[in-house]
Amino acid sequence: MIKKYVMTPGPTPISEEVLLEHARPLMHHRSPEFSKIFVEVTDKLKRLLQTKNDVFILTSSGTGAMEASIVNFFSRDDAVLVVNIGNFGERFKKMTLKYGLEVFSLDYEWGDTAEPGDIKKILDENPGIKGVILQFSETSTGALNDVETIASIVKNYPAIFIVDAISGLGASDLRTDEWNLDVVIGGSQKALSAPTGIAFISVSDKAWKLNEKSDIPRFYFDLATARNYLHKTPPQSPWTPGISIIVSMNKALDLLLEEGLEKVFNRHRVMALATRKAAEKLGLELLVKDRDKRGFSVTSIIVPEGIDARELTKIMRVKYGVTIAGGQGKLSGKIIRIGHLGYFGMFDVIIAISALEMTLKEIGFQFEIGSGIAEAEKTFMENNYLDS
Amino acid sequence: MIKKYVMTPGPTPISEEVLLEHARPLMHHRSPEFSKIFVEVTDKLKRLLQTKNDVFILTSSGTGAMEASIVNFFSRDDAVLVVNIGNFGERFKKMTLKYGLEVFSLDYEWGDTAEPGDIKKILDENPGIKGVILQFSETSTGALNDVETIASIVKNYPAIFIVDAISGLGASDLRTDEWNLDVVIGGSQKALSAPTGIAFISVSDKAWKLNEKSDIPRFYFDLATARNYLHKTPPQSPWTPGISIIVSMNKALDLLLEEGLEKVFNRHRVMALATRKAAEKLGLELLVKDRDKRGFSVTSIIVPEGIDARELTKIMRVKYGVTIAGGQGKLSGKIIRIGHLGYFGMFDVIIAISALEMTLKEIGFQFEIGSGIAEAEKTFMENNYLDS
Repeated sequence: MIKKYVMTPGPTPISEEVLLEHARPLMHHRSPEFSKIFVEVTDKLKRLLQTKNDVFILTSSGTGAMEASIVNFFSRDDAVLVVNIGNFGERFKKMTLKYGLEVFSLDYEWGDTAEPGDIKKILDENPGIKGVILQFSETSTGALNDVETIASIVKNYPAIFIVDAISGLGASDLRTDEWNLDVVIGGSQKALSAPTGIAFISVSDKAWKLNEKSDIPRFYFDLATARNYLHKTPPQSPWTPGISIIVSMNKALDLLLEEGLEKVFNRHRVMALATRKAAEKLGLELLVKDRDKRGFSVTSIIVPEGIDARELTKIMRVKYGVTIAGGQGKLSGKIIRIGHLGYFGMFDVIIAISALEMTLKEIGFQFEIGSGIAEAEKTFMENNYLDS
Repeated sequence: MIKKYVMTPGPTPISEEVLLEHARPLMHHRSPEFSKIFVEVTDKLKRLLQTKNDVFILTSSGTGAMEASIVNFFSRDDAVLVVNIGNFGERFKKMTLKYGLEVFSLDYEWGDTAEPGDIKKILDENPGIKGVILQFSETSTGALNDVETIASIVKNYPAIFIVDAISGLGASDLRTDEWNLDVVIGGSQKALSAPTGIAFISVSDKAWKLNEKSDIPRFYFDLATARNYLHKTPPQSPWTPGISIIVSMNKALDLLLEEGLEKVFNRHRVMALATRKAAEKLGLELLVKDRDKRGFSVTSIIVPEGIDARELTKIMRVKYGVTIAGGQGKLSGKIIRIGHLGYFGMFDVIIAISALEMTLKEIGFQFEIGSGIAEAEKTFMENNYLDS
């Protein structure tokens, strides 16, 4: 009967209201009642992405949408620039290489973000580059790329700008049309706090022009097929979609849009700030050194010398019922990650910090017990969390 | 408050027990508790597929697994034989052509099934063929290929045998290992009667040997990657899976395996028989002429001259709350399809026939009202449905 809390950067906790929608008997995916929901979800995703571009719902994990963002727009041997600030940047690198693209890779330390000037330099030196590809929030580190500034550069080049916003969307402002983002990817299981299994992708006119020339073979993730079905009357998806997830996303999007995007972003900002101030108060070091490079979805904390990261997360999970994430790839065993993305409120941060405090004490780390919580409480009060 | 019944060949009705599992708060996909379920579901799928081969769970619709069955085993310009008896055969044809394969196409009338001798002839004449690809049950017609006989032929050639069993698995006996089926595909939303959004695929040693030489680029559906993750301790899926669907599949598989596969197959056989005898009693003609070619998942009925198929299905859906399927592709408007696949019992057949009778009467079709139901009841009683 130990009460359980999932505090990872995805899957994120699902509200009772969304779970109830998820549990409804399935409607048929070609029925008028599902078509209505399909249209509603598509329209609400456009509001979340701040775009008038078509948004396509894919039945896959986010990695499937990453694949769709590559195979629909490029041809074999096309040059692309992959901006790599962590594990998911690495995934884009592997994927673009698999598909036979010529890959320029701009690699940063994990925990750092991209320097817009570096991207401009590579685009100036290599005018043939057809796409710039990066993460908005890099889930493996919690760093947040300055997509607005980078977009203001890329838009002046022939390259399209592909943004994996899976874990950043909803936690930080992302303006697809205003910033000229050509392809933007999101997932059901992050800020939406709906179940895992659905991804979505928006496509600009500039990207559709590249699509016409693209020769990479594709079928399941073919977005021109998805566009044909989306523009049917009534709009549909080409293949049987994850019906129950889409139905639950409809409610999840209502909750987000009723709260209002400004308030949603501020909620995430203050929760992230409280988590970080608490961790620092405990004497812990954050992975992302520069405050301005920290996103609001997840907080990566360096595990102090002499402490076993796996033991720490295991005690938190088994004894306290609090699941947080460890490090991925080369940060495995070196950091812990606390998610505060989606259906989270200030007391979830209090729970995470409280479980962390008790676990660290048990392991023998030296700090004043309760001091992290005090710092989090002060942060919430000073930042008018409730008035936001 | 009109009570609703979905009687299509997928999505199929979900039992309350499975829906409750589906509605559970999500566990993290890298947590020990989910790993346990992931292993259980994988093992139960192996029992359903009657195989010792690895079975991979994919977060996608069945079409994604069809794509996986192509891109993992062939190379550009490889020759394959697509056996086409309906809409999903057409899909395999389009897909293999998209991926640059040399496609031998063996096309039959929709409603017919493949002649094993035809396949043998093509394999004899074209020894370079690397794969034979077909549907077990063709969902668009309800015809069932004689996979056992065809497999006994294909196993003597270098070609691998790829079977799309999405809508046939669980309704009819399919013995992956005993029959030497190299690649078998299934989906969550058919006989399992779990929600849509998960597909699965088994792979034989013969198929893995082709995989080593395959040069079609792939990432999301790469089965060698999936194998690496499946053989980790604990077993995992490479990308974030559709967690809630997999959890519900665990319960759905329990229900199927507790009933016992023999009983499950018999239940489907008798429901199919009752539906068909009732339809014929009403004076309707079945699409699949030859009894021995009829599968047990779905019954395709030719819409009589002068009756508008769309009006018929619309009245059934709107007035009676009973959703059945229309025709696909070139059978659109020409047939109706009643699904009796998955969580269905005899009274579901009674409901479908009853709604069909009342709708046909309303439209002006001539027959003795109640006669279809009487025929269905007799069929259930004569076939010892309850003792099965």
